[in-house]
Amino acid sequence: MELLTTNNVWMMICTALVFFMHLGFAFLEIGLTRQKNTINILFKNIFIITVGLLLYCLVGFNLMYPGDFNGFLGFAGFGLDAEAALDLTYSEGYTYWTDFLFQGMFAATAATIVSGAVAERIKLGPFMIFTVIYVALIYPIAGSWKWGGGFLDELGFYDFAGSTLVHSVGGWAALVAVSLLGARKGKFDKNGKSLVILGHNIPLATAGVLILWLGWFGFNGGSVLSADPALTSLTLVTTCLAAASGGVASFILSNILHKNFDLTMFLNGILGGLVGITAGADLMSPTDAILIGAIAGVVIVLAVAFIDKLKLDDPVGAIAVHLACGIWGTLAVGIFGDLAGWEQLTSQIIGVASYAVICIVSSYLIFATLKKTIGIRVSEKEELEGLDLHEHEMNAYADFRMNEH
Amino acid sequence: MELLTTNNVWMMICTALVFFMHLGFAFLEIGLTRQKNTINILFKNIFIITVGLLLYCLVGFNLMYPGDFNGFLGFAGFGLDAEAALDLTYSEGYTYWTDFLFQGMFAATAATIVSGAVAERIKLGPFMIFTVIYVALIYPIAGSWKWGGGFLDELGFYDFAGSTLVHSVGGWAALVAVSLLGARKGKFDKNGKSLVILGHNIPLATAGVLILWLGWFGFNGGSVLSADPALTSLTLVTTCLAAASGGVASFILSNILHKNFDLTMFLNGILGGLVGITAGADLMSPTDAILIGAIAGVVIVLAVAFIDKLKLDDPVGAIAVHLACGIWGTLAVGIFGDLAGWEQLTSQIIGVASYAVICIVSSYLIFATLKKTIGIRVSEKEELEGLDLHEHEMNAYADFRMNEH
Amino acid sequence: MELLTTNNVWMMICTALVFFMHLGFAFLEIGLTRQKNTINILFKNIFIITVGLLLYCLVGFNLMYPGDFNGFLGFAGFGLDAEAALDLTYSEGYTYWTDFLFQGMFAATAATIVSGAVAERIKLGPFMIFTVIYVALIYPIAGSWKWGGGFLDELGFYDFAGSTLVHSVGGWAALVAVSLLGARKGKFDKNGKSLVILGHNIPLATAGVLILWLGWFGFNGGSVLSADPALTSLTLVTTCLAAASGGVASFILSNILHKNFDLTMFLNGILGGLVGITAGADLMSPTDAILIGAIAGVVIVLAVAFIDKLKLDDPVGAIAVHLACGIWGTLAVGIFGDLAGWEQLTSQIIGVASYAVICIVSSYLIFATLKKTIGIRVSEKEELEGLDLHEHEMNAYADFRMNEH
Repeated sequence: MELLTTNNVWMMICTALVFFMHLGFAFLEIGLTRQKNTINILFKNIFIITVGLLLYCLVGFNLMYPGDFNGFLGFAGFGLDAEAALDLTYSEGYTYWTDFLFQGMFAATAATIVSGAVAERIKLGPFMIFTVIYVALIYPIAGSWKWGGGFLDELGFYDFAGSTLVHSVGGWAALVAVSLLGARKGKFDKNGKSLVILGHNIPLATAGVLILWLGWFGFNGGSVLSADPALTSLTLVTTCLAAASGGVASFILSNILHKNFDLTMFLNGILGGLVGITAGADLMSPTDAILIGAIAGVVIVLAVAFIDKLKLDDPVGAIAVHLACGIWGTLAVGIFGDLAGWEQLTSQIIGVASYAVICIVSSYLIFATLKKTIGIRVSEKEELEGLDLHEHEMNAYADFRMNEH
Repeated sequence: MELLTTNNVWMMICTALVFFMHLGFAFLEIGLTRQKNTINILFKNIFIITVGLLLYCLVGFNLMYPGDFNGFLGFAGFGLDAEAALDLTYSEGYTYWTDFLFQGMFAATAATIVSGAVAERIKLGPFMIFTVIYVALIYPIAGSWKWGGGFLDELGFYDFAGSTLVHSVGGWAALVAVSLLGARKGKFDKNGKSLVILGHNIPLATAGVLILWLGWFGFNGGSVLSADPALTSLTLVTTCLAAASGGVASFILSNILHKNFDLTMFLNGILGGLVGITAGADLMSPTDAILIGAIAGVVIVLAVAFIDKLKLDDPVGAIAVHLACGIWGTLAVGIFGDLAGWEQLTSQIIGVASYAVICIVSSYLIFATLKKTIGIRVSEKEELEGLDLHEHEMNAYADFRMNEH
Repeated sequence: MELLTTNNVWMMICTALVFFMHLGFAFLEIGLTRQKNTINILFKNIFIITVGLLLYCLVGFNLMYPGDFNGFLGFAGFGLDAEAALDLTYSEGYTYWTDFLFQGMFAATAATIVSGAVAERIKLGPFMIFTVIYVALIYPIAGSWKWGGGFLDELGFYDFAGSTLVHSVGGWAALVAVSLLGARKGKFDKNGKSLVILGHNIPLATAGVLILWLGWFGFNGGSVLSADPALTSLTLVTTCLAAASGGVASFILSNILHKNFDLTMFLNGILGGLVGITAGADLMSPTDAILIGAIAGVVIVLAVAFIDKLKLDDPVGAIAVHLACGIWGTLAVGIFGDLAGWEQLTSQIIGVASYAVICIVSSYLIFATLKKTIGIRVSEKEELEGLDLHEHEMNAYADFRMNEH
């Protein structure tokens, strides 16, 4: 009972920290985009966290943890289970309520990742419809395959805190959405050369990354599912070291390639390191963590350039961070740490591929349908003048004079 | 001893989270007002948290928890009690020090609520005088009626974490202050039509709401007064669900009424849901919490319109959020959840009415006296040019060019 | 085991809070300086936290805690110790991993303090070199003298959480750096009169102070090195009361001297109170804490004026806050609280002097060498146009129109 109390305290704190990541995502996303679309982005983020929690309560939790099931799809019924809630032997690590809330805070993250990639030109309505379907159905069903004890769990696939289950689930949808949506006006010139569209508030973007790093204490630390002192503290160490080495590697590589001191690449490197360590944060030594983070930092720089070359326009680098580093981190479990080995690596590859299939197919179906029916892209005029004015009739910074774009 | 340690850890974390709410309030308030009054608002908020803590140490704590007393007014003496502090059997849930600090963080909140409502035209000096009296005397005396074991506690009135004791105590004073102060220049036109005065930094306002939501994990979670795993985690679930449903209900209703996607209404709905669940967060099922939050979201939209119609100018919507939803949440304890019933509802109504009396009378006496003597409103010139320039000779954003207002 | 779990949870949370202080420092520093150097400052802060952690992992931790050593300099070897990590009897208060990470979060702080003082004119390269040497070598070696069980520990010197070991270690280097670097163009006029260079974002500066205060819950609370309920909660109370009284004292004194309501002085007073209580936060009564904080608030106002009179240009007041109040707080351990007495005061003076010697000598050697070789100051043109443009080719706020400076 005393141990449950302690464990549950830790899990509640981790829940709070993961919740706080939504401010981090919001700051990062508005910071790296233009002032004229700020309200729209904040609206999407607030929509995701509120509607996401309600949907996870209504259907998501019981889709993701259906109990005994066929390993592909199960559902334990609508709403929360008041009886399970009364049973304090539900787990040694947390109560039923904590379990729901911690998992619920994760659920909204996948949609938030997409939000960043499609920023500045997606219509609000279709994005909300996508969010509802993805958070209510796709994320939890895909999650059940591993964390719900489904077929990938039986197969030995390992994903500690969600390099794949959370980050690449968001990343694949971001990739699909960006492909269907097209680039922002002015992102590529007539010859297809990529141009820089500057973010409008780098202090908030930087704050966003530090808040996300803080939130990762809970994201990974809470994924131990108890306050086990050795495991939780190891996890925090690997998480922080990977974040640090990811940032430093991105900064150094980008300095070598482009002879600059690029703050946003430094920041994305930190995020890449965090995403990269997430699949195996409890399995790695400090040295492993530093290596995994550093490689993630390199992956970021290369992926950003590659995505650009594909003429995909991802304003915040979400695909590079969450998809590329999510895949890297998942594979790294087979290469570094306690589980390393060919067999594990094979399981990891199967896992990555399985999530690629469900996410690409489902998000393609959703976005393609929306595109054919109500359309997913705002008008040229709206894009030019900003979504804030057209969808919200508001201005994020009413008192400030703006440059003309 | 081990359980005390765990409980106390939880309570200390909750204390830190409630402290952090002061940044949330500050961000919300400056975000929803004009750039020219930003320094003034920040100054007030910093004044409240520092002076509030010192006053609560000097007199507030012992006014609020006087021990055995007549149920209306008692005082256990100035300063903290070093002897009680040494007694580790003081409570199973926390030490004496934690008790003081957690309660002290609550105390300043009431004044902060008023700060938002009177923003952009109140004189700094009188506001500081009001804050000192209200935080040092009115808040703790009123609080003793219930949390100190006073007459409302004996009567069966229930207020878990302060829908009434904190939020409506601030809200009533805000209502009185706004009435005596009058509207900002330009808020109502010659025909009495309400005009929009835009907030100058919506990203910070949004961040403020998310920080407040985070702080509410401590505000409600800590009000369990221990780390009891079932109760604390239930409380976090009801708190988060009510926040989510409050926001969504406000957004939907405002979308139906005004055909827009109004971010600030969404944000205020979240706050309304949080205030609404606060009185009974430990008593409700998830469904109850969603309903209470949703109704709070509706209350917000209606209350904002109604307050506007009364020609009361509340720049941040503090009266709608903290007073209207504070009353709603207090009554909801008699309608939903474990205590629902006519008897309880009667107690709740008596409680609401009692706090209305002490808060309206006391804040009227304070503000009316200040108005008749030193005056409470800045000059027209100062209001036009901004309080930052006149009271602080500073500019919140020195390097940025501003629009003329 | 259960107690270790609880203690370790507390220590991990404190680690997270100290980590979060880096956002506080970043916000404070950019807020109090000009928009044109914002990216540069953020880059430095991100560099410090990432590189600092990696260096502390590689050498710092084992320099600071070398085990049995001569009391002046010891080294337990490169990298972390996987065997110690497996030993759950390592301490009753925390695991080996938590120990490393908590101390690692402290390590970067010293360099961050310097960053603020040298802002707006130091070259990025030399600053990075200084950071690496100071964080990897000087900070941990100096720290070993007391916290590693070195000669000052044997001598009876007391520094609970680092008024000297962290804050004045940063403060001395800031003093040396500012002396060698010279003032910003335009800080002093032809007659040597000090002019005001306005900070560009006071809301973020204010947020920085509140985040730092929040972080101090972990900085001081975690320095108990366990979750001992009496000690941790006392520490939080003394920390918060000193912060409050520091702010109020600064505000009142500055109001008496200059007839204004100076928000930045209020904020610096809070920080001064926090730095001042840090050396003896576990030894003081509430009254002691309020007095120590209030004196720190007075020290701040006087020190800022004095440093200005010396023609030293410290844009964020880092020397006044971290050095002057760091010294004051260290001496206060001999004057107030459980250890007060002439003998203790003598030990405190010896401690302060010892750290003055190592920090002044080492930082002089580093900065003077850098000055003579690659130079430490940017060109006049770069200073005028901003470091963001020249070192980073970026603009912190691309969409906003700026005033000409």
